[in-house]
Amino acid sequence: MAAIVVGHKNPDTDSITAAISLAYLKSKLGVEAKPVAQGELNPESKFVLDKFGFSAPEIVTDATDQKIFLVDHSDKSQSLDNLEKGEILGIVDHHKLGDITTPNPIEIWVWPVGCTCTVLKGMYDFYGVEIPKEIAGIMCCAILSDTVIFKSATCTPQDVEAAEALAKIAGIDDLKALGLEMFKVKSAIEGTPIRDLVYRDYKDFDMSGNKVGIGQLEVVDLSLVEPIKDELYSELQKIKEEGGYHSIFFMLTDIMKEGTELLIVSDNPAVVEVAWGVKPEGRSVWLPGVMSRKKQVVPNLEKAFAG
Amino acid sequence: MAAIVVGHKNPDTDSITAAISLAYLKSKLGVEAKPVAQGELNPESKFVLDKFGFSAPEIVTDATDQKIFLVDHSDKSQSLDNLEKGEILGIVDHHKLGDITTPNPIEIWVWPVGCTCTVLKGMYDFYGVEIPKEIAGIMCCAILSDTVIFKSATCTPQDVEAAEALAKIAGIDDLKALGLEMFKVKSAIEGTPIRDLVYRDYKDFDMSGNKVGIGQLEVVDLSLVEPIKDELYSELQKIKEEGGYHSIFFMLTDIMKEGTELLIVSDNPAVVEVAWGVKPEGRSVWLPGVMSRKKQVVPNLEKAFAG
Repeated sequence: MAAIVVGHKNPDTDSITAAISLAYLKSKLGVEAKPVAQGELNPESKFVLDKFGFSAPEIVTDATDQKIFLVDHSDKSQSLDNLEKGEILGIVDHHKLGDITTPNPIEIWVWPVGCTCTVLKGMYDFYGVEIPKEIAGIMCCAILSDTVIFKSATCTPQDVEAAEALAKIAGIDDLKALGLEMFKVKSAIEGTPIRDLVYRDYKDFDMSGNKVGIGQLEVVDLSLVEPIKDELYSELQKIKEEGGYHSIFFMLTDIMKEGTELLIVSDNPAVVEVAWGVKPEGRSVWLPGVMSRKKQVVPNLEKAFAG
Repeated sequence: MAAIVVGHKNPDTDSITAAISLAYLKSKLGVEAKPVAQGELNPESKFVLDKFGFSAPEIVTDATDQKIFLVDHSDKSQSLDNLEKGEILGIVDHHKLGDITTPNPIEIWVWPVGCTCTVLKGMYDFYGVEIPKEIAGIMCCAILSDTVIFKSATCTPQDVEAAEALAKIAGIDDLKALGLEMFKVKSAIEGTPIRDLVYRDYKDFDMSGNKVGIGQLEVVDLSLVEPIKDELYSELQKIKEEGGYHSIFFMLTDIMKEGTELLIVSDNPAVVEVAWGVKPEGRSVWLPGVMSRKKQVVPNLEKAFAG
């Protein structure tokens, strides 16, 4: 029986493409493996697979009796159901080391880089396996996506180097143009219910005993959001009431201008001034250079709430 | 401040040499790092470091405020005290994935091979860093030790390949001769109190509610143990009484003949016959081909006790 290669729940482009890429590499090394996914493709991943001629991987959500390679995660909460009833053969990832343990020695490749596909590029090099043009194409797209076209604080020189080498193999001339095309698909808002937009990338936090929600929408141009901003703000107010939040912050991140307009619905909007030293005007504040929730928003707010 | 590179508690040759080897590699890659150890060298490790001109690494047992690379383990119980007060930068290992987690992405190289130094050989190759002759020598010794000169059930073709390549760099002509020399040092029994010999490699198990102790002594020739066998057996009987054991089994493993003479002190010696289908004669039984406590002794006894 072929091993399965699977990324995290709510799969993104890196999880999908890393599964395809590792399954191919393993097959070339004599280990039968097929890529699967824990859920449907998001619009960006669908665009990427379509562009390079791949169909969506089969959906698998249960580990029972499976032999498994995990990509793009090492946390039980992000992984297959009944993980202890399958056999993990390997992990390829770029996140913090999670709580998965194994009864036997396995193969693990984890590097502190911006994208799992950057690690996979290293594995192909190490094993001397040639990367087919189409697989190089989707791996390159994963790096552009995870590093926000090399602008994210998580991007490393290894990511840029890998993406450029993969682009060469795939015959991609203009990385930035391809990245923008992907982000236009990713940030498409037409036809999406407002609440789905809010929850597309949304997380709850406990900050010094206060319930705080932080969402993010990355767009190639803030003007695209202008027509729905009023509706979006009303929706955040509703969610705040319904959920008993102290605050909801919603990041409208302009990846070209490299900054974030932060929508603020809060019992104490002054925390924003404490967090960034900038006074909100009306219902939002412009934060130049701020693009990462994890690295630039959560820590500042946690300090402001604690102070 | 330089990062420290450290192996597991009660360090063996792989833990010591992998720390030295990774510290050198990291320094070559621009990360200041120094090897340390969680305890004194055992006789084998001392022999190996002396042979290639290294002194014993400084002893460090506390992680507080340290930047740390872990080698040869990924379990908290095997690691430094106060591990959460240090910052783990990387893990290089060949054991099952343990319970260590990290708050940030780190570098992890873990392969299902016989020795950490086999993984390290791969890392040197990957980064294109030349291995100095002396470091190649101690890495080669670690592989010979961990794989019992390629005879252990844990040995893989990668281990053999790495050891042969390292031997070439180090100018070692006869791997087997070097391995035997090491095992003679390791299994030296002159001058060692009998109880220390028993506890040199000894573990307790709970088998279906029965307290069972299993020790192991690896020797290059069983005849070396002959003069102390009576004394050894009396000591096992004493330990059984003192510790309230159901059974103590002591493996006298002959690495050349590739088998184990199992000394038996038990309330029910018949479990040995159930476990291996061989009737004990007197106080011991010869088990041809049995060399690994973990893979060939514990599972059989657990089944026999359960049945």
